[in-house]
Amino acid sequence: MEIKEVYTLVKDGLAGVDQQFHLLADSQEGRFAELHKMLSHILSGRGKAVRPLLALHAGSLYNYDLPKITCMATASELMHIATLVHDDAIDKADVRRNQLTINKIWGTDKAIIFGDYLFAKAAEYAVDTGSLRVVRLFSKTLEAISYGELMQGFSAFNLDQTYDQYVERISGKTAALFALSTEGGSILSGAPEESIQIVDDIFDFIGTEKDLGKPVGSDLAQGTVTLPTLLMMERCPEDNPVRRIFRNEGDKDQNVRQAIEMVRNSDIVDECYEAASDYSARASRDLDKLPDTPSRQALYTMADYVVKRDR
Amino acid sequence: MEIKEVYTLVKDGLAGVDQQFHLLADSQEGRFAELHKMLSHILSGRGKAVRPLLALHAGSLYNYDLPKITCMATASELMHIATLVHDDAIDKADVRRNQLTINKIWGTDKAIIFGDYLFAKAAEYAVDTGSLRVVRLFSKTLEAISYGELMQGFSAFNLDQTYDQYVERISGKTAALFALSTEGGSILSGAPEESIQIVDDIFDFIGTEKDLGKPVGSDLAQGTVTLPTLLMMERCPEDNPVRRIFRNEGDKDQNVRQAIEMVRNSDIVDECYEAASDYSARASRDLDKLPDTPSRQALYTMADYVVKRDR
Repeated sequence: MEIKEVYTLVKDGLAGVDQQFHLLADSQEGRFAELHKMLSHILSGRGKAVRPLLALHAGSLYNYDLPKITCMATASELMHIATLVHDDAIDKADVRRNQLTINKIWGTDKAIIFGDYLFAKAAEYAVDTGSLRVVRLFSKTLEAISYGELMQGFSAFNLDQTYDQYVERISGKTAALFALSTEGGSILSGAPEESIQIVDDIFDFIGTEKDLGKPVGSDLAQGTVTLPTLLMMERCPEDNPVRRIFRNEGDKDQNVRQAIEMVRNSDIVDECYEAASDYSARASRDLDKLPDTPSRQALYTMADYVVKRDR
Repeated sequence: MEIKEVYTLVKDGLAGVDQQFHLLADSQEGRFAELHKMLSHILSGRGKAVRPLLALHAGSLYNYDLPKITCMATASELMHIATLVHDDAIDKADVRRNQLTINKIWGTDKAIIFGDYLFAKAAEYAVDTGSLRVVRLFSKTLEAISYGELMQGFSAFNLDQTYDQYVERISGKTAALFALSTEGGSILSGAPEESIQIVDDIFDFIGTEKDLGKPVGSDLAQGTVTLPTLLMMERCPEDNPVRRIFRNEGDKDQNVRQAIEMVRNSDIVDECYEAASDYSARASRDLDKLPDTPSRQALYTMADYVVKRDR
């Protein structure tokens, strides 16, 4: 299936999510001007709506309950944005998706509270699904994400990590939100338990795979060890730019540039994708067990699309 | 009723909340050492458990469902602590309740994520009440708190505020969490709608009253306008230390000290309590409408206790 069809198949749901975002921003117009600006800002900076797409397609596998699944899709997108707002505040990032970050425009303090506000709105949409199970899943996901981020924070600039620790850590991020979207969607569609488990696992894998393929760069500058970094340490144990960065030797920017260059000119990225291929293969095998519907087809396409290499 | 009896009446529930806090900290022992330390740290710094007390007594007005009400009490206390962790990170506060803050020990970045983690755990306890209505209330409360904090952030160092705007702003804080605790408790006790509304209103007022009585000081230094500040501006419109602080004239610390001195030596604090007395009177009248139980008695005592002046 073409990626375009993945969008058109659930265009009513996507329009519903858009409408909720506009309602949210509009609710503050003429009431709280600065909050209205902040909400309009994140609205204009929205990405490819990957999480709503996952929720909507998982939600169409059995019974497509449009109002409920729209709430679920909106909740997962809002939670995603809330975590990005806090991430950017922590990373002191200036730009995301070609626009200035909330913390760059309004400062770190406002970004912290605005992120909390978005968590609250996300929770309200989760409640609007009417499913306590979905809300529980939602809370557990925020727990997994913040747990993973804390682990990442405490292991920053610590090269003494195993591959397994690395996978455990990153699984708190992309994977958790992908799994939330698909598992929440399938619960709301009334899917049997086995199917719920399958879509949960698949997009947990896909999310992990996506993170495994992440290049060095900003992560490296912040002391976050990624798989390419671990592989570089393995290959050049004596001296390499990564080790110099973590030991604070020489010019940091130059070391980061050199590290990226070394990774690009090696087969490290290929090896990362190989390491992740198990995840992808298992995902495809598992999708075969779901009902043969256009949405299953869409999920295959998304699994490919999401992990597509941008080299 | 003596305050001591307020505690002994619901000692089983308070013990339950303590147990949940210990379980939470213990769950990370030998698993994630730094998170274990952070959780133990907030555990040892807990205050007078005002929010659990409110939840437990409101929860005893009709049917006392101990397991559910314990979850509610734990959720409201955890949410309170999460907001404090973020507040302290934003205020760059070093000390709270005679111990170092999370941000002082572990830094702002960790404090942001740890606060998110606590929001997630709080939400899980809210879900464990089994009541979607309680979870909705919970989300709406976090929304009200962050909304109020954002308004406060944007009106910092802005003296051009009315009394009504001021009350609207502060009602996002103490009042919202008091109202959550009592309203959540009464919902879980199966209280009739009218009673739920009464306890919600009462502790919304009590919380507002408490904030109305807050002295100038740290709030002032951070540019937060409080009622004493507004009254001082009204009385000495030409020149006063508050105006100098907000206009960045002269030595800030000296101006803050002078402002506190001026408020203490005036009847401004008395006037603040008068302004708040309507709230208190209405609260007492409304409590009379609830069933005449020891817990109603406890709520009377708490209403007094919570707003007690610490001059």
